[in-house]
Amino acid sequence: MESSQQHEGSSSYYAVIFTSTRTEGDNGYGLMADRMAELASRQPGYIGVDSVRDASGAGITVSYWESLEAIRNWKANEAHLVAQEKGKQDWYKHYSVKICKVEREYGSQER
Amino acid sequence: MESSQQHEGSSSYYAVIFTSTRTEGDNGYGLMADRMAELASRQPGYIGVDSVRDASGAGITVSYWESLEAIRNWKANEAHLVAQEKGKQDWYKHYSVKICKVEREYGSQER
Repeated sequence: MESSQQHEGSSSYYAVIFTSTRTEGDNGYGLMADRMAELASRQPGYIGVDSVRDASGAGITVSYWESLEAIRNWKANEAHLVAQEKGKQDWYKHYSVKICKVEREYGSQER
Repeated sequence: MESSQQHEGSSSYYAVIFTSTRTEGDNGYGLMADRMAELASRQPGYIGVDSVRDASGAGITVSYWESLEAIRNWKANEAHLVAQEKGKQDWYKHYSVKICKVEREYGSQER
């Protein structure tokens, strides 16, 4: 899994859950997805991302942000707007976006 | 993608983001995962689930619940406690659980 979360401490933060199903064929998706992941990682307030897609084309990407404002700014980024439009037109059969406040978390130590 | 979300209306609800990386081999995981998905779906306050795992063993499962109490009750379910322990011991190299309040959502129409 791509995972680069850098969040630490007890302050609240936000998760954007993006679920999608891809259309057939690449159609420029792979290159744009890489570009957008790189661009997102340089946005103010970006914390990290977890992203998985299976062979059937079903995917879940969860990105983590310090504030709702950071999420709004990323959504309004001009290059990202172009990618969003291509996503709607060409890349996704359907998708869903959920903006969430992370209330609590726990997990394993890496081993 | 497995997706059976039945939530409607404007009332708030919660998402549990479970990210994990599987160990090698099945070791009873597939059967238990199916059982737990079925059992979760019959819990009070369950809304639905999105779940994806790729060939490398990376997975994200997001389950949706009507309340924090429903999430607590599912976490404390006896059969689920057994599965959680097996998960820690045998099935996951590492995992993370994030409990979130869904603040807003949007998406495509199915097409």
